[in-house]
Amino acid sequence: MSSPDPALLSINAATVRAQWSLPDIISGLTRHGIRGIAPWRDQVAAAGLDNTARRIRDAGLVVTGLCRGGMFPAPDREGRRAAHDDNRRAVDEAVTLGAQCLVLVAGGLPKDRAGRVVSRDLAGAREMVRDGLGQLHEYAHGAGMRLAIEPLHPMYAADRACVNTLAQANALCDELAPDGADGLGVAVDVYHVWWDPDLRAQIAYAGERNRLYAYHICDWLVPTRDLLNDRGMMGDGVIDLPLIRSWMDAAGYRGMHEVEIFSAENWWKRDGDDVLSTCRRRHADAS
Amino acid sequence: MSSPDPALLSINAATVRAQWSLPDIISGLTRHGIRGIAPWRDQVAAAGLDNTARRIRDAGLVVTGLCRGGMFPAPDREGRRAAHDDNRRAVDEAVTLGAQCLVLVAGGLPKDRAGRVVSRDLAGAREMVRDGLGQLHEYAHGAGMRLAIEPLHPMYAADRACVNTLAQANALCDELAPDGADGLGVAVDVYHVWWDPDLRAQIAYAGERNRLYAYHICDWLVPTRDLLNDRGMMGDGVIDLPLIRSWMDAAGYRGMHEVEIFSAENWWKRDGDDVLSTCRRRHADAS
Repeated sequence: MSSPDPALLSINAATVRAQWSLPDIISGLTRHGIRGIAPWRDQVAAAGLDNTARRIRDAGLVVTGLCRGGMFPAPDREGRRAAHDDNRRAVDEAVTLGAQCLVLVAGGLPKDRAGRVVSRDLAGAREMVRDGLGQLHEYAHGAGMRLAIEPLHPMYAADRACVNTLAQANALCDELAPDGADGLGVAVDVYHVWWDPDLRAQIAYAGERNRLYAYHICDWLVPTRDLLNDRGMMGDGVIDLPLIRSWMDAAGYRGMHEVEIFSAENWWKRDGDDVLSTCRRRHADAS
Repeated sequence: MSSPDPALLSINAATVRAQWSLPDIISGLTRHGIRGIAPWRDQVAAAGLDNTARRIRDAGLVVTGLCRGGMFPAPDREGRRAAHDDNRRAVDEAVTLGAQCLVLVAGGLPKDRAGRVVSRDLAGAREMVRDGLGQLHEYAHGAGMRLAIEPLHPMYAADRACVNTLAQANALCDELAPDGADGLGVAVDVYHVWWDPDLRAQIAYAGERNRLYAYHICDWLVPTRDLLNDRGMMGDGVIDLPLIRSWMDAAGYRGMHEVEIFSAENWWKRDGDDVLSTCRRRHADAS
């Protein structure tokens, strides 16, 4: 397997968010010759939307995605409407930033305002996701912004996302907007889907329908010490990244490779420049 | 949904293993009027196999499963042969104990003798599982012992089991011994499969083929603080246990409901009798 084109490297801002503000991250990417970024909405808000859009444009960065919208399920109509309103704002922000897509994390079981799960109705939550996604897609389609559903690992089914396999994400697209050219697609994050025996087939299926909007990489560590913030740098774990990249390539994906690492005890504690140079090297050697 | 028959309660010995030896657990179950047990091999060995078999027989307990065999993948032929030899011993022990099945955890990616994962070939590991399982089934069939493949949650794919969905377990049975009457079936543990959008259909599929050998219950806590040892008591988490039980019932499962809770920071720190009485109550009220 040959190394990936270094120009395809993008960095999800979460990877160095503990070290740097968003303007610092943009400067850092420029310094390291990295050409893609995926910002998070809280950091965009902190730096100012228009200011961020200008900085990103000036730096010549591709915005491989805005993180994130979604979180559709809620215990009542008011909560679901609030989610929809927030998601429309996210679409508008993605448009302003010139993002290739708005990344959607579905949301898990309905929670009350204090953030406590208040339902065990997983099938019902999945229906809320479908309904909310359909409604948001209408808006986003009008705004010219693509929505990328990101299936999350099953260990997040309760509290973060009840869309847990690429097959599920594909089924949602099949139902709501089967042709990816209509602005509904998927984000494939290896951390969430690497274990799936059906992964190759589902990537191919998504590719045939022009749905592969984003590709996120990192690694799965053994042992994994925390469910949320113990992701590994490419090469430090057990995911066969070149293999999955070859499936993405074969399915027609030509977009960037976005490194997204939540790592409270390791990478978030290191110097940001060290993290970025490691990302560059590992993208070349181990992805 | 009506309460389950209290006579169907079984206790996996791991639930109180931090408090009690296996003889103590057997006495405890008798004291609480609980009629099923699933012992672990290390505790059986510590108490002596024949001694344990006699105690269980004297107590009139149903052995809903022996934990566990499996762990098929290994980096070399010698390692796979060692696994096979150990698995044959596990079958023999299950026969001596009169277990309804030997529970199989497939094993994850191949590890060296120090327990370090030495391969990223997940598909290859799955082939080793199929081959090892086929070989073991021949032996177990001759010995009259049923093998129950237990799909483990995808978060264990790397280090514990690369069989991660009931669909995968069903596919293995389809290939190796399609009729459950031939001694190859599945153990459905809600902790591992509750998130699966395909669960109801796969339980029904397994039921039609007489493959539902065991049903394990506990709960998924939000938040989950540890990948391995933070399982919840029924009713304390987000799994819709009566719903999944209704799917098992509809699929023809008439076996016991085995409570299996690994809980380093909570239930393993409580008095064993408190744990057992809570299991009884929650089996009735929240399962």
